Amino acid sequence: MPLETIPAGHGTHIPLERGKILRVIDPEGGQSGDLVAFRAGDVTEWLSNGRSFDYGAKIYFSTGDVLYSNKSQPMLTIVRDDVGRHDFLFTSCSIEMFRIQYGIEGYHSNCIDNICNALQHLRVKPHMVPTAFNFFMNAKVAPDGRITIEAPCSRAADAIYFRAEMDLAIALTACPAPSCNGGPPRPVAYEILDHLPPS
Amino acid sequence: MPLETIPAGHGTHIPLERGKILRVIDPEGGQSGDLVAFRAGDVTEWLSNGRSFDYGAKIYFSTGDVLYSNKSQPMLTIVRDDVGRHDFLFTSCSIEMFRIQYGIEGYHSNCIDNICNALQHLRVKPHMVPTAFNFFMNAKVAPDGRITIEAPCSRAADAIYFRAEMDLAIALTACPAPSCNGGPPRPVAYEILDHLPPS
Repeated sequence: MPLETIPAGHGTHIPLERGKILRVIDPEGGQSGDLVAFRAGDVTEWLSNGRSFDYGAKIYFSTGDVLYSNKSQPMLTIVRDDVGRHDFLFTSCSIEMFRIQYGIEGYHSNCIDNICNALQHLRVKPHMVPTAFNFFMNAKVAPDGRITIEAPCSRAADAIYFRAEMDLAIALTACPAPSCNGGPPRPVAYEILDHLPPS
Repeated sequence: MPLETIPAGHGTHIPLERGKILRVIDPEGGQSGDLVAFRAGDVTEWLSNGRSFDYGAKIYFSTGDVLYSNKSQPMLTIVRDDVGRHDFLFTSCSIEMFRIQYGIEGYHSNCIDNICNALQHLRVKPHMVPTAFNFFMNAKVAPDGRITIEAPCSRAADAIYFRAEMDLAIALTACPAPSCNGGPPRPVAYEILDHLPPS
């Protein structure tokens, strides 16, 4: 499969079979995006930050870490990671978020709508979208619990590789929120691989 | 309304009108529990840790903090807090969690089932239960993201007071997981107040 590009501020659906590798790339550097996953054919099973936090005993995930479903099943394993810092705390950006955080009253491209559009064949509605795995997003938690969002650590061509532990319906976005991306929104690229290539 | 008690390892439904105060008490000390909220009459709007993290720019919440719904509406405000440390990261305990974390193969009382039973009149199923506000639970996040669960800071008779910012259907539990409670599970008490009493 060739490299596919998600334009800045957009999203797409990726069916990912168990055992396949999803490589998510930051082509230009400094760009984050959202990954949401449902079990193929069953929208009642979804990628859960709360279960992953519990079983991993951590809030930051990188190479070797397993991401779990709300039904406590392994969904994805991070098998390689050039970046090492991702966020799993923040809900995807939405029209309401842009109004509250940026004062934008009209429509603004947002990850919730992009995820629902990508998964409309599964009838995923906004209230069914769980907290995304915000790849390359750099949300730092201080010891007192305060969160600061800094620019992603990803440089041009950096990637994170996920192995599917079950058949999945994935939504992947290139986030349009400037504050998460250290600058104007840019594209995200991806490809599906049969095996993890030599490093 | 008199003080109500939730026995150890159980849960209950609490309808809470906008403006009313819910006082949640740890009668014996060292006990945590889960609070889940839906908008009254609309299970598509629920208490969201991801939105609360985003708008509060923090993961720990106490007096003065607002907890938001997935639709970015204020749901609850913490108006008094004797304890000062609660968790909003961990998903409620479940049968699967007790199998994975404790090796328990048979049935074990758990907060997911207790929440669904409390809200069965709303047809809330396990996959619809969002990450609970784990009152009095003491999950510490280190700078590297590692989470350690310590005994709750709550002493006997300590309480947290929430004001409802909309009409709510709340599920409240006394958590049966020993690791969150610094000892065997104990009860939780609560009452509904018209006004915040003088401190």
